[in-house]
Amino acid sequence: MELKVIARIRTDFGEKFGIPRQSGLVPELTGRIVFEPAFKDPAAVKDLVQYDRIWLIWGFSELGEDRPFSPTVRPPRLGGNKRVSVFATRSPFRPNPIGLSCVSLLKVETDTAEGPVLTVGGADLMDGTPIYDIKPYLPHFEAFPEARGGFSKEHQGDVLRVDFPEHLLALVPEDKRVSLKEVLALDPRPAYQHEAVNIRFQVTEEHLVVTDVSENG
Amino acid sequence: MELKVIARIRTDFGEKFGIPRQSGLVPELTGRIVFEPAFKDPAAVKDLVQYDRIWLIWGFSELGEDRPFSPTVRPPRLGGNKRVSVFATRSPFRPNPIGLSCVSLLKVETDTAEGPVLTVGGADLMDGTPIYDIKPYLPHFEAFPEARGGFSKEHQGDVLRVDFPEHLLALVPEDKRVSLKEVLALDPRPAYQHEAVNIRFQVTEEHLVVTDVSENG
Repeated sequence: MELKVIARIRTDFGEKFGIPRQSGLVPELTGRIVFEPAFKDPAAVKDLVQYDRIWLIWGFSELGEDRPFSPTVRPPRLGGNKRVSVFATRSPFRPNPIGLSCVSLLKVETDTAEGPVLTVGGADLMDGTPIYDIKPYLPHFEAFPEARGGFSKEHQGDVLRVDFPEHLLALVPEDKRVSLKEVLALDPRPAYQHEAVNIRFQVTEEHLVVTDVSENG
Repeated sequence: MELKVIARIRTDFGEKFGIPRQSGLVPELTGRIVFEPAFKDPAAVKDLVQYDRIWLIWGFSELGEDRPFSPTVRPPRLGGNKRVSVFATRSPFRPNPIGLSCVSLLKVETDTAEGPVLTVGGADLMDGTPIYDIKPYLPHFEAFPEARGGFSKEHQGDVLRVDFPEHLLALVPEDKRVSLKEVLALDPRPAYQHEAVNIRFQVTEEHLVVTDVSENG
């Protein structure tokens, strides 16, 4: 099946580095879903106001296509050296590089200069990521708090204390400070590099860009 | 993005008629996921035993491709005559005809005559439906029982009392009786035809086939 890009998400993550490993880990991270010209129709989204949450089906756009099939992957959360069945992970390195994210729906605008725009919270997507489908979250059929969650649960509580000097934090736009500290608390360092890294924050007109500028980063 | 078929599901639904409108409505409905030759690798699925539930990302294979984009659809649950934003529904008539189902994972077999096979419960898929991705269900990031569920909640309790004479039920294989009665209780009749319909059950070696044989069916 050939998928059409229906929209793209705008987020503060200009590169893969720093993106939380699952949706919802940092609820303060917001993103704006802007539709492609052929799908800019207010009627297609207006009834979403009845929902608190939506599903995004999207593409891991940074991967090259046609990688050979690897039946196992090494999830970063397990230290990057244990192999796990690919279909038992949410790794991007899967036969079809499709991502699935449950995000909160904060705002439905039907008539902006960019057409209809959905503002979502908790997005774990890179800026510009193509969106292939948007579906309402149906709690009756999709909320199973008691389901066993595999290894993803084990590292649930691992967060860092973030020590961010006030005079540096003052350089960050006020509305980005909470989300930035929460992203750092999740420890964006790769699992194989648990020592100091040098991170550069660059504030542009539209984005707060976080980059790893360590020598080996 | 071009999606590859990684597996197909085998269910008792040989046609669209009778398929529950969401996954999980009839937990007793089981399906078997059989992988395509290129993906028959036990290593790719064995760690799924750590999970109770999985996501299936699949294709509405009965639809013709390249339909023009319709920003609204008429969900059968609303009587079939109210128009709703397509992205606020789970209708198959969407820009990319991708389905998303949360099913229970009942059995993981790594070594059958057909290769690895996953047995799932609550599947709302037609026999032979192509599967594009399988992901573990992560309750920490995906279980939100309190999320508002839109109009899908309103008709939650609508079930029929099923009056199935014993001598006829005896003709149905024993392991299919509960699921058959539950499928009927959900009322498989189209919303615009709430009168008597004639349904034929045909038991083949592999399947219980349910067909609408009403004159206009």
